[in-house]
Amino acid sequence: MGFQNQTPRIEILFTGSELLEGRPNTHQNYLCLKLKNAGFSVVRATTLPDDQAALALEIKAWSLRSDALIICGGLGPTFDDLSREAASEALKRPLIYHPEIFKTIKARFSRYRHPIPPGNKKQAYLIEGAQIIDNPRGSAPGQILEISRKNDIPQSLFLLPGPFAEMSPLFEGAILPRLRSLYGQNLFSKHLLLHLSGISESAADEKLSSVVDAFKGKAHFTILGLPAQVEFYASVQGKTAQEAKTKMRKLKAAILKKVGPFVFGEGEETLESALGRALLKAKKTLAVAESCTAGGLAARITSVPGSSDYFKGGLISYSNDIKRDFLGVEPKTLSRFGAVSPECAIEMAEGVRQKMKSSVGISITGIAGPGGGSAKKPVGLVYVGLAGLTQKPFSRRLHLLGERETVRKRAVSWALHFCLKEVMGER
Amino acid sequence: MGFQNQTPRIEILFTGSELLEGRPNTHQNYLCLKLKNAGFSVVRATTLPDDQAALALEIKAWSLRSDALIICGGLGPTFDDLSREAASEALKRPLIYHPEIFKTIKARFSRYRHPIPPGNKKQAYLIEGAQIIDNPRGSAPGQILEISRKNDIPQSLFLLPGPFAEMSPLFEGAILPRLRSLYGQNLFSKHLLLHLSGISESAADEKLSSVVDAFKGKAHFTILGLPAQVEFYASVQGKTAQEAKTKMRKLKAAILKKVGPFVFGEGEETLESALGRALLKAKKTLAVAESCTAGGLAARITSVPGSSDYFKGGLISYSNDIKRDFLGVEPKTLSRFGAVSPECAIEMAEGVRQKMKSSVGISITGIAGPGGGSAKKPVGLVYVGLAGLTQKPFSRRLHLLGERETVRKRAVSWALHFCLKEVMGER
Repeated sequence: MGFQNQTPRIEILFTGSELLEGRPNTHQNYLCLKLKNAGFSVVRATTLPDDQAALALEIKAWSLRSDALIICGGLGPTFDDLSREAASEALKRPLIYHPEIFKTIKARFSRYRHPIPPGNKKQAYLIEGAQIIDNPRGSAPGQILEISRKNDIPQSLFLLPGPFAEMSPLFEGAILPRLRSLYGQNLFSKHLLLHLSGISESAADEKLSSVVDAFKGKAHFTILGLPAQVEFYASVQGKTAQEAKTKMRKLKAAILKKVGPFVFGEGEETLESALGRALLKAKKTLAVAESCTAGGLAARITSVPGSSDYFKGGLISYSNDIKRDFLGVEPKTLSRFGAVSPECAIEMAEGVRQKMKSSVGISITGIAGPGGGSAKKPVGLVYVGLAGLTQKPFSRRLHLLGERETVRKRAVSWALHFCLKEVMGER
Repeated sequence: MGFQNQTPRIEILFTGSELLEGRPNTHQNYLCLKLKNAGFSVVRATTLPDDQAALALEIKAWSLRSDALIICGGLGPTFDDLSREAASEALKRPLIYHPEIFKTIKARFSRYRHPIPPGNKKQAYLIEGAQIIDNPRGSAPGQILEISRKNDIPQSLFLLPGPFAEMSPLFEGAILPRLRSLYGQNLFSKHLLLHLSGISESAADEKLSSVVDAFKGKAHFTILGLPAQVEFYASVQGKTAQEAKTKMRKLKAAILKKVGPFVFGEGEETLESALGRALLKAKKTLAVAESCTAGGLAARITSVPGSSDYFKGGLISYSNDIKRDFLGVEPKTLSRFGAVSPECAIEMAEGVRQKMKSSVGISITGIAGPGGGSAKKPVGLVYVGLAGLTQKPFSRRLHLLGERETVRKRAVSWALHFCLKEVMGER
């Protein structure tokens, strides 16, 4: 197992019977991607039910074959939360009660004016020798246990809570830095995550193929198609930080030469955060009018903290009456062209802009399905209207594939893309 | 391992380095769900890189602990397709070349006018004793190997190709029927998935603990906390269909005695679909006014196909002007109590109900964070208003835990819960 200058063998163990009953395991993608981005590689990912004996056996097997183990889930207060107990059993280290942790948990509950359920006392137990990782977003703290090995670098075990909103900040704030300090000293890597919109995955793949070929063996690439967006990931490694940096600079220049006009952001950027910054910079405010997406666009825009600085509000006009009464859409537009038409999209965008006194108005009207389609206006036909950015309001037509929820998500992404493009001018 | 009248222990093994580098493993959800629906349970899902030694070790370990193993991937023609080789090594059974399989592969390539690459010859090898499963959608056939065990039912190994479009028809057409015939004859199971709202996971856990204890060893339980919802899953088995049915009837009665008032649905039901049906039944229509959730409530309501039959529209009032101009909230309500107050929530709900001419109005106003909180009105404080269901509109106060998006999701679930409860009357 000695691996001077080699990458450590990292395993991930998920516990949760629901994960073996058909629930998607999004944590696995997230953790594998983050670890890969940091230059680590995962040698095994295992999902087990909430079964202490099975968990303990797996932890024991890990301790005989690999270096680091990240356990996700099983730290909750209920009967089927068994990770602490299983790790204690496998490693023959007792669980120790820490009154100060219980105090923190109690304080958390009282802050939110909830009585503390008896099961939560379990969460104040740490495996002997483990350090606590504070979890400000939940009652279950994480745990880090380092086990020294003779003539070798230490083994490390990490216990993380299951809910994503609790797990991810603990992973990024405590686990990843600890893995780096334990195993990462001789490893320098640079990563680049680019977000593209307005281009399909296969078109982006084709445009980038010469770059991928030219850097074969010298860089690692992943391309991922999302609803109306593409993510392109690249990483390089070097013997020094400077070497990795220089390699990445060259690679990034080559990538941007091919797909630069489609790139709207890097790293944690999203279409909605990019649009928010662009609106603030242009000193513009926004209002939206939604039919088929019914709040999905507004919900995404306002997922950005501070969005109230530029977002004024929105109108969900699920019926024609509301399009007419609240947005001022002409009855004859509705009767002649229908609610799903460029004309209606334009009147909705301009209407909400005027009524809500914003500088920009976006509208979405379309047929999300499964019902409501016709030969002339099939399911997936969506119009996006934009007002306040060009001399005259205009609309864009989309033919979107997929189920109801996919059509709605894609429509929202395209609307954000169209608006961002106009606010930024030519990118 | 003898398990007469017990469910077989089924494991799934995925091979593919990309699955450990952040690519979502949708096969796992699919296979687990299909197996669960067929009454089987998966006791382990493992993902390994394209590494023959690691795969062979895992297959060996499976053969010592479980009954069936489904391997997905690693049947392709390239250097990193190693499932056949690993199974052969682990089970000490040679790979046998089958010229008739190679003929089929060659015919397939000539049909598409492609020359046959040399690597595809690998795909004509079967593990000694294995049966072929034809794969009309790809060049790699699947394999089924049955291993008899003394005094016990056989062990079975299944090799499936990696691409979903090839894997899923082979799984449904050949694997599932074989699993049924091997293990399913004496197996009858009944499943129950209950959805609860208005109760926390730990409170539900406490209320149900006596049922879980009473049925220990006779039923399988899982409890899962979601934002403002709880899922409780139970399964029982019997020697006859009738026995399983009777067991489940007793179990369900015991569960409903404890948590019946919190159960809003079974199986595929969601809060929004339950609310939709209740509104249709009560011949009521709905409109919403949202501040902090900004369209999230409307988007969830309209995720139900056909929701336009009862949902009229909504107003996203992210600024006070819009609360006043579009909803008729009194300026003095805003100045005296603030936008996050029971008074404002009530006026928003009643305002949107009147303006959009619906029978019911729901409003949400609160502080989603991370900014905007104060000692008196902390992040997570949310008011839900309801109009049109009781003699006078009323509001409910929530103190929600979590990050911005979690607070928003929880607020939406609680609003749906409050409304559903009122529309249905006492449940």
